[in-house]
Amino acid sequence: MTFRWLRRAGAPRLEYGADYNPEQWPREVWDEDVEAMRTAGVTIVSLGIFSWARLEPADGEYDFGWLDDAMDLLHANGILVDLATATASPPPWLTTAYPEILPVDREGRTLWPGGRQHWRPTSPVFRRYALRLVRELATRYAAHPALAAWHVNNELGCHNVYDHSSDAASAFRDWLRSRYGTLDALNEAWGTAFWSQRYGEWDEILPPRLAATHPNPGQQLDFKRFSSAVLKDYLIAERDILRAVTPEVPVTTNFMVMGETKAMDYADWAAEVDFVANDHYRQPGPRSRDELSFSANLTGNLAGGRPWFLMEHSTSAVNWQPVNLAKRPGELERDSLTHVAHGADAVCFFQWRQSRAGAEKFHSAMVPHAGTDSDLFRTVSALGARLRELAFVAGAPRTRARAAIVFDWTSWWAGEQDSHPTDRLRYRREALDWYTAFLDAGVRVDVVPLSAPIEDYDVVVAPILYVVPAGLGKRLSAYVENGGHLVTTYFSGIVDENDHVWLGGYPGAFRDLLGIRIEEFAPLLDDERVRLDNGTTGTLWTDRIDVTGPGTEVLASYASGDAAGRPAITRRGVGAGSATYVSTRLGPDGLAPVLGDLLARAGVESELPAGLRGRVELAIRGDVRFLMNRTDEEINLTAFGPGAGPGPGPGTLAAGAVAVTES
Amino acid sequence: MTFRWLRRAGAPRLEYGADYNPEQWPREVWDEDVEAMRTAGVTIVSLGIFSWARLEPADGEYDFGWLDDAMDLLHANGILVDLATATASPPPWLTTAYPEILPVDREGRTLWPGGRQHWRPTSPVFRRYALRLVRELATRYAAHPALAAWHVNNELGCHNVYDHSSDAASAFRDWLRSRYGTLDALNEAWGTAFWSQRYGEWDEILPPRLAATHPNPGQQLDFKRFSSAVLKDYLIAERDILRAVTPEVPVTTNFMVMGETKAMDYADWAAEVDFVANDHYRQPGPRSRDELSFSANLTGNLAGGRPWFLMEHSTSAVNWQPVNLAKRPGELERDSLTHVAHGADAVCFFQWRQSRAGAEKFHSAMVPHAGTDSDLFRTVSALGARLRELAFVAGAPRTRARAAIVFDWTSWWAGEQDSHPTDRLRYRREALDWYTAFLDAGVRVDVVPLSAPIEDYDVVVAPILYVVPAGLGKRLSAYVENGGHLVTTYFSGIVDENDHVWLGGYPGAFRDLLGIRIEEFAPLLDDERVRLDNGTTGTLWTDRIDVTGPGTEVLASYASGDAAGRPAITRRGVGAGSATYVSTRLGPDGLAPVLGDLLARAGVESELPAGLRGRVELAIRGDVRFLMNRTDEEINLTAFGPGAGPGPGPGTLAAGAVAVTES
Amino acid sequence: MTFRWLRRAGAPRLEYGADYNPEQWPREVWDEDVEAMRTAGVTIVSLGIFSWARLEPADGEYDFGWLDDAMDLLHANGILVDLATATASPPPWLTTAYPEILPVDREGRTLWPGGRQHWRPTSPVFRRYALRLVRELATRYAAHPALAAWHVNNELGCHNVYDHSSDAASAFRDWLRSRYGTLDALNEAWGTAFWSQRYGEWDEILPPRLAATHPNPGQQLDFKRFSSAVLKDYLIAERDILRAVTPEVPVTTNFMVMGETKAMDYADWAAEVDFVANDHYRQPGPRSRDELSFSANLTGNLAGGRPWFLMEHSTSAVNWQPVNLAKRPGELERDSLTHVAHGADAVCFFQWRQSRAGAEKFHSAMVPHAGTDSDLFRTVSALGARLRELAFVAGAPRTRARAAIVFDWTSWWAGEQDSHPTDRLRYRREALDWYTAFLDAGVRVDVVPLSAPIEDYDVVVAPILYVVPAGLGKRLSAYVENGGHLVTTYFSGIVDENDHVWLGGYPGAFRDLLGIRIEEFAPLLDDERVRLDNGTTGTLWTDRIDVTGPGTEVLASYASGDAAGRPAITRRGVGAGSATYVSTRLGPDGLAPVLGDLLARAGVESELPAGLRGRVELAIRGDVRFLMNRTDEEINLTAFGPGAGPGPGPGTLAAGAVAVTES
Repeated sequence: MTFRWLRRAGAPRLEYGADYNPEQWPREVWDEDVEAMRTAGVTIVSLGIFSWARLEPADGEYDFGWLDDAMDLLHANGILVDLATATASPPPWLTTAYPEILPVDREGRTLWPGGRQHWRPTSPVFRRYALRLVRELATRYAAHPALAAWHVNNELGCHNVYDHSSDAASAFRDWLRSRYGTLDALNEAWGTAFWSQRYGEWDEILPPRLAATHPNPGQQLDFKRFSSAVLKDYLIAERDILRAVTPEVPVTTNFMVMGETKAMDYADWAAEVDFVANDHYRQPGPRSRDELSFSANLTGNLAGGRPWFLMEHSTSAVNWQPVNLAKRPGELERDSLTHVAHGADAVCFFQWRQSRAGAEKFHSAMVPHAGTDSDLFRTVSALGARLRELAFVAGAPRTRARAAIVFDWTSWWAGEQDSHPTDRLRYRREALDWYTAFLDAGVRVDVVPLSAPIEDYDVVVAPILYVVPAGLGKRLSAYVENGGHLVTTYFSGIVDENDHVWLGGYPGAFRDLLGIRIEEFAPLLDDERVRLDNGTTGTLWTDRIDVTGPGTEVLASYASGDAAGRPAITRRGVGAGSATYVSTRLGPDGLAPVLGDLLARAGVESELPAGLRGRVELAIRGDVRFLMNRTDEEINLTAFGPGAGPGPGPGTLAAGAVAVTES
Repeated sequence: MTFRWLRRAGAPRLEYGADYNPEQWPREVWDEDVEAMRTAGVTIVSLGIFSWARLEPADGEYDFGWLDDAMDLLHANGILVDLATATASPPPWLTTAYPEILPVDREGRTLWPGGRQHWRPTSPVFRRYALRLVRELATRYAAHPALAAWHVNNELGCHNVYDHSSDAASAFRDWLRSRYGTLDALNEAWGTAFWSQRYGEWDEILPPRLAATHPNPGQQLDFKRFSSAVLKDYLIAERDILRAVTPEVPVTTNFMVMGETKAMDYADWAAEVDFVANDHYRQPGPRSRDELSFSANLTGNLAGGRPWFLMEHSTSAVNWQPVNLAKRPGELERDSLTHVAHGADAVCFFQWRQSRAGAEKFHSAMVPHAGTDSDLFRTVSALGARLRELAFVAGAPRTRARAAIVFDWTSWWAGEQDSHPTDRLRYRREALDWYTAFLDAGVRVDVVPLSAPIEDYDVVVAPILYVVPAGLGKRLSAYVENGGHLVTTYFSGIVDENDHVWLGGYPGAFRDLLGIRIEEFAPLLDDERVRLDNGTTGTLWTDRIDVTGPGTEVLASYASGDAAGRPAITRRGVGAGSATYVSTRLGPDGLAPVLGDLLARAGVESELPAGLRGRVELAIRGDVRFLMNRTDEEINLTAFGPGAGPGPGPGTLAAGAVAVTES
Repeated sequence: MTFRWLRRAGAPRLEYGADYNPEQWPREVWDEDVEAMRTAGVTIVSLGIFSWARLEPADGEYDFGWLDDAMDLLHANGILVDLATATASPPPWLTTAYPEILPVDREGRTLWPGGRQHWRPTSPVFRRYALRLVRELATRYAAHPALAAWHVNNELGCHNVYDHSSDAASAFRDWLRSRYGTLDALNEAWGTAFWSQRYGEWDEILPPRLAATHPNPGQQLDFKRFSSAVLKDYLIAERDILRAVTPEVPVTTNFMVMGETKAMDYADWAAEVDFVANDHYRQPGPRSRDELSFSANLTGNLAGGRPWFLMEHSTSAVNWQPVNLAKRPGELERDSLTHVAHGADAVCFFQWRQSRAGAEKFHSAMVPHAGTDSDLFRTVSALGARLRELAFVAGAPRTRARAAIVFDWTSWWAGEQDSHPTDRLRYRREALDWYTAFLDAGVRVDVVPLSAPIEDYDVVVAPILYVVPAGLGKRLSAYVENGGHLVTTYFSGIVDENDHVWLGGYPGAFRDLLGIRIEEFAPLLDDERVRLDNGTTGTLWTDRIDVTGPGTEVLASYASGDAAGRPAITRRGVGAGSATYVSTRLGPDGLAPVLGDLLARAGVESELPAGLRGRVELAIRGDVRFLMNRTDEEINLTAFGPGAGPGPGPGTLAAGAVAVTES
């Protein structure tokens, strides 16, 4: 597949815009809209995301006039359109006629209309109707000059990814038949010899619905795989229609790489779109900024270093958190440019004009309820200007770091299933701990999917890599043997792709590579902490580690708790390479010495002068260095003269601000 | 409609009694009952509340003999009867024959028999059977001399107000058709252009059942309106039968003005009964006593100042709270007389004799398990005597205060819906904060429904008045222009009756009146607090306020947090009147200076001598002053001589006690 | 019924083993298994627990070959088999063909396959299929020389005890008809005069499904009784087939006497098995060890002092708790021998070899994932050797203590129902408080079912004995009159067997015996504590006690709170006997003085030297004394010479270890 970025002419630029929902407003407001868009510097809008009921008010009756009008108006004002296929929410007439479209949750409860996304990903009826609309839209607007890209559906899987209906059961069986070929293979993979679960016919298999106790873990894990795959199939179904009608128009859909949204394996999806797009919303808390950077970083690597599209974020507060904080001065620009720093060539919002009514009326927008005469609109316009200044960045590739954190949806899914040593384990939190430790050290790191080529990185961190098929184990061993420095953590290398334990002592897949053997896990209660003899403190987990050879160094030992005296952190040198194991949750501060040691061994140094490390985040795209102030203080950049290392040049960087310099 | 109080002869008196359930006891106990009732001073009992299964043991077969007996016995002993229509809980034979009577909750779960009130308010079958019973009862007892009033059903809506069944869906559509006339109007009101929700046929509309995400807020709000209205319709249906059969017998039903019971808009119901009756139970906590007074006060104003009936409260512990506290010495009298002070002409309990069996056997009663030889029965009898002493109060009107707190169910419902700036906001808690601040200041205040005439009050407090239709905005502006002093708070004046935001800057409906403009809300996290420069502390919420004209004074500004330096409390003078805005939750202590200033400006002074303010609550009925001790200490009333202001006269007031003096 | 212990020849011994699931492993592993079993000292395994799907892969098609092989292999290696009837989990083909087998929970949700135990105890279809399998198995293996016992199903009721399906409704009606005979009797027992619940036909009765509010307490309590009874019936149904086919082979099933597992009234079940077997798993926390001892003690008394079988516990961590702690060194032996000390003649585990796959793969086993070359397997083997050394204990009866704590499922069930004075009350926790107080005092106590003969005990503790039928009240009074010392607590003696309150003042059933009368309960809020004048502190509950006669002593009074000055602990002497009442939760430390006083009065002394009391637990079987170290320190036993009382002999007792000496 050839990569395609937006269909448009002209010099490189950073696109700027929002979801635009003119159907919520009288026609006269549209003229004000486009004028204000020009003031703000808007170059593109997403149109029609939730317009099905308006476009097709009754079965087979279409009303495209208003959309023609909107497309023409935007084009006349030089604004591109990312046109949605409008299939995100089925209209009332459709679910009334076919209630079998509605999803059914794990407890057997129907999810009714009233909100959005109330459709079964596997419903044949839904597909028939939705794909018919896609074809109509594609045909009608194929030649429209405003059309810059197609936007498939919207936030696929946000609410409906896990459907337990009869349609889902049937599709699950088909998927399993395709995965396993025979029932014997499935019975073996799922370990159905346990608890009298052996299947004799395919039709006996069901989704993991509410059960008397924990359902089979293989069934659970495969249902997660299936649910992600079947939504990807739906994405492909829409895409294929669009490609057939308009082969020259790129197709995307908005991912949700953020926080605990975990059901869609975007590493598996990314190849199916012509360019990656992402939605990102921050959650309050001390790690909020780092999490944004982590997500942007991962999104950039899902995109393979190519330009990507920040399809949604917010100008200020959202409406769906328990308490929805307004953004502080500077946050909007800082957040936006952090995405740009990690490769985004577009900065867009939900939404252009804040709704007067509906479930998201208190979600901020580019034009707030207060109107264009408002601080927020002025900030939005200033950001538009800043993006125009930075147009030269557009298209520049992300510059690879020397270190990587690998991120794997399968280990995320499987590692957090029930019936484990502890239910407190959180995969993404551990990954973020490492990310923050890198930021604190002032060292750039790439967050990459497991499928990415890791061989060129000097340092690879693989946190909680619970699922390690045989091939992956070999690949990581080869990486180390070839001089790479690998670090992994507690509950890594435990099972194969079927969630079957590697026997003989943990971590079975990495026992030889790490030169250790663990007979028992020893997770900690919520209020338990253990001291390490390097002065750090562990929580959540410990292991009873035995070192299995002279090549394994003990970097730190437990100094308290039941494991006192046993190794806590080990490293086995393998030629020029090394394999490090961290057996407890240390948090960013506790990881600092481990990481420092590892980077020193790998010869990876900070690209920042000493005084800036930890205080700013550095990201590099092509010739451009982005410096994001991580602190609440102004940083004097002039203090870092030429002798202090590669300084960012003179000037100061306000709290939470971003500087862009030449590399 | 002409107001009718109890049908009875004789001098004014305060009625005293309880629910009486003789069917739970052998016949010989009844004789003990009436004797003990006379000892206790009981004048009235509610009979037959849950007697349907006993009165109609099989479809169309009636057994009234035992009830005849009970009515005759009570009459022979001079005890009046508030006769229930017995429709509160359908008998097993009915729900077995017609399971379609059973309510269905939001998640699609049937609510089965076993408890009580398991009927759909909209069920045609239930109505047919229940109204048949009402007619039978009314006809049979129309001429009975004990009959003093009719008691419709019981605690309408306590458990079954929100029914999502197919009956409810059908009735909801009828109600909406009547409200909106056309689907276009409904689509506009609900903002269905958002999320592809446009309805093409009435039959597509459903109650807000469990959805993939938050249902449409208009659908939610109208379902709340509908659910209250449809129960009121049921009340009217019973009432109309009773009125037709016994036009001279007044009809009531027991409201539940208390705590977080919020689904029934009693301001809308009050006109449908011949006299208002209320049930009130206290919840533990430091504001428990104030909440009781608040509820009694509001009930009195729902009754328009006319006598009302305290239909249920408890002699001591209840059974349905997590921990059910017994009442301390004095509490029973203090609680009862606080209701009387706010206009109650009857003090009744659930129930007369504590049950031996059933779900409420650990709910206290006038005759406890221990029997009549008990402290509790002696306390109950003493209260009966005290009520006889206070008979002269009966019929006296509540004496209006000079200040009012307006209370509005629509803002309560809509203001606490999901997808708002914070889900921590609590409407009634803010109103109670103000009420406590008035009590602390020793100033009487009326808690009145929004429909009450507020024009004669010098001060009106409208906390969190989120929903402000255009007419209401004008009414409140006129109130200020005519010299009134209005104070409102954060999240007031935000939307119209359809939950559509007033645009142009918050609070849209009050922007001109208050002389401020807010571009963004800034709610606070749970552990966040902001200091104000007047020494008080805000929680929950802040606003980014701009003062829009020279007429607006800043009474206090934020001294910490993101809004530091911005106004926190403002006042705009309008001729002799003023409009004050409080942008954060201050709590009773923090409201004290704001309120003090407001009262001074309005010339409203405490009617208590300085030393009593805050320590006692004052309420006035006709010529009678009630002084309720709010403290845990004895208060020496003699210390307040004539020179100290309008003193209550000599004597002392024990902790938690009540004094009654001439005005 | 004659008691039958295992069918085997040879000298007395303590059996040792585990659940063995060879069907989860390739055939070649089986040979390793039996070799390792011999190393570990395994003498018996439970086979076929979850093998239905393997034994009957399709309706009526059996595959016993593999089981023949396993039985033969075990027999060849001298290992006995406790053969399961394999009915614990129905195979997929059965629930696919008959979905009406699946249980339905209180909320109407079907419990689907995927886990285990997804069958309705009352399903006629399930019974037909399951009992057919039992007969097949019994016939096939009747003569097998390895067969030592039959294991009915597995952990009956662990997940499916409360089924609300139509099958359950029908069976519930049958059970009620049998219990009550007439509807009048049922209506009276359930108090259906309350809330219009009078039943006119048996078919109107339902299980206590989700209701609008709390269902009838009689209905709830009888449903608990029914649910326990109907599972017992199922146990009997399997047992009767087994007995008919192999009258000489004893039948058991594994109880779950542990923690909050409360739905099965094992006191009612115990007589139905040929020997009692139990599963026990510890929960983390400071009382964890005492809880284990409590459960073992109770199990031993359910077995009537006869040998019992510890069917399951864990070698180390389990997999189903939030955080699953590994066992510390010594814990495995200490836990195992504590069961032996209380009468267990077998120590078995779930399971032999840790699974590679399935829901319990992280549950520890005798052979861990690490294999036999592991600390855990060496510890397991050492325990096997220790059990062989202790073989002489086998068959020895438990030696009765002089004090007993009575344990009653009915009071547990009824006492913790809703709509009570507090929902914080926990029956078993109060019983465990007393047990710990006995351990702290170094005095042996038996935990006995209420049906046990208590007449020979000098001291009987009856905590929270809420349900007291008239006969029981008389029995306890007679016990005291005959010189016994009875102590009971708050919320005892309140209701009869129908949950009807004993009138006239609490505790109605014990008022005369205790010489007190309580008019009102006064439970405490979570953060409330009251001081007693003996220096102890009460939580949870207080009573307003009046002493009713000169024979009642006040042992301690409240010194704070609303009850200050009133009695907190009372005792009435009755001849040589006495009846003590404790009206608040004191916890083990607060109970110490009460218990000390009681024991002194009864002349019950510790059998331990003073220095050992509280530090070790003493249990006696026949001639053997078990000393379990309760501390984290080594205890020097030599310090207790002959002069110090009955010492355990020379030597030291490591932290958490167990010593066995002659009595």
